[in-house]
Amino acid sequence: MRRIRLIAEYEGTAYVGWQTQPNGIAVQQKIEEAIENVTGTRSALHGSGRTDSGVHALAQVAHFDTTARMPADKFAFALNTFLPGDIRILYSDEVPDTFHSRFCAKRKHYRYSIQTGPHADVFLRRTALHVHAPLDFDVLQNAASEYLGEHDFRAFMSTGSTMENTVRSIYFSEWTMDGNLLHYDVCGNGFLYNMVRIMVGTMLEINAGRLPKDSIRNAFSTSERSLAGATAPAHGLTLLRVIYPDFDTKEILGRP
Amino acid sequence: MRRIRLIAEYEGTAYVGWQTQPNGIAVQQKIEEAIENVTGTRSALHGSGRTDSGVHALAQVAHFDTTARMPADKFAFALNTFLPGDIRILYSDEVPDTFHSRFCAKRKHYRYSIQTGPHADVFLRRTALHVHAPLDFDVLQNAASEYLGEHDFRAFMSTGSTMENTVRSIYFSEWTMDGNLLHYDVCGNGFLYNMVRIMVGTMLEINAGRLPKDSIRNAFSTSERSLAGATAPAHGLTLLRVIYPDFDTKEILGRP
Repeated sequence: MRRIRLIAEYEGTAYVGWQTQPNGIAVQQKIEEAIENVTGTRSALHGSGRTDSGVHALAQVAHFDTTARMPADKFAFALNTFLPGDIRILYSDEVPDTFHSRFCAKRKHYRYSIQTGPHADVFLRRTALHVHAPLDFDVLQNAASEYLGEHDFRAFMSTGSTMENTVRSIYFSEWTMDGNLLHYDVCGNGFLYNMVRIMVGTMLEINAGRLPKDSIRNAFSTSERSLAGATAPAHGLTLLRVIYPDFDTKEILGRP
Repeated sequence: MRRIRLIAEYEGTAYVGWQTQPNGIAVQQKIEEAIENVTGTRSALHGSGRTDSGVHALAQVAHFDTTARMPADKFAFALNTFLPGDIRILYSDEVPDTFHSRFCAKRKHYRYSIQTGPHADVFLRRTALHVHAPLDFDVLQNAASEYLGEHDFRAFMSTGSTMENTVRSIYFSEWTMDGNLLHYDVCGNGFLYNMVRIMVGTMLEINAGRLPKDSIRNAFSTSERSLAGATAPAHGLTLLRVIYPDFDTKEILGRP
């Protein structure tokens, strides 16, 4: 048995998310089908983590085991011939069977993109949330800095989720402006269900004056979901980079 | 009667092109339907020119006449409420009835985008042609400079087109590189049917060695369509800017 590692890029618009679900088509399922087409055998594909329905990825890491003898770097090309245009395998290699996409991942970097201005740009409509109301960059940046460090993020998890350990560390949390595009970049050792989207929704509600400026601190100290903001829409969110002890998608791909 | 001028942005993927056709849905038709929804009356919409099926626009100019009393700048917002997400009106104003989107247009600026590298980026798949084979930037740039000036572009027009005057002036014709994206920018006083796509196809065939380096000069002197290259695919092409004597979409929008 050989273990093959993949880096996948996808536009999540058409999918129920990374993980196979009964209610629609998942990215994982499309890649598993392509593996079956290439190798002749169904193999379970393990991703670095789930992405929600409609969320995109520039660099999702996954692995599967196979007896197929194809040179490891050729899997990317072979799988792409069976994949739809909104999913691409950018890289493939062979790794020791001690590697696990999910258990070995140390940090993840997500980006949430917002387009401002009176009319939504048609070319950004699938990958950036359009916000018509004015945004105060300094208010957003101050709110973002509140997330830095180790906190109990229970208030920033979708109700109904059953995760026991909800303490996570955030190493980077910053907004940048690029014309009328705003990007929120966040890097942490792990993210709870819907966590980035609730973090963004909270900052947007603080910006709009619908939540007080100390909401993030209060949500940390009380763990009350109701003190955080609404979940921001999925389509603005992209998994940008996954970092392992000896492997970083940014190094491999030459871009975040 | 008032004359209303619009600047429209669209992703052409889902349309048979700008102009209304019997075989599918056109951008012009969608905007005319929105005008009817807003004003209660069907009005003919005139664009600065046609774009082919699958071609995009960052700034298409159009006008229509109406008796509706809405403030001119509000038409953009009102029409967008009836338009699908892949068509946006970015700007609207009132103009004298001596203005005509097509007859008054002096110059147009098109961009053709190509992505290189082994795997097509999913986020560029609708707006850039993916070319796997290596491209020689200097060969492309030299070929592009051959188009500059006034020439008879009959060889760069789709066969079957019946345009009589096929002389056009090209003011700007240049490739730029942005990572693994290549952009070809061309500005001229007018373009024949499929002309930009045949110009690009010819440069790509010269680059690949399938056409000799003097092909463009020979195509000009002989007007033989067969001496130029194949028509490059539509989805890499975008109408970027339309320039009038007293009006430039770049000035209005603050971007090309």
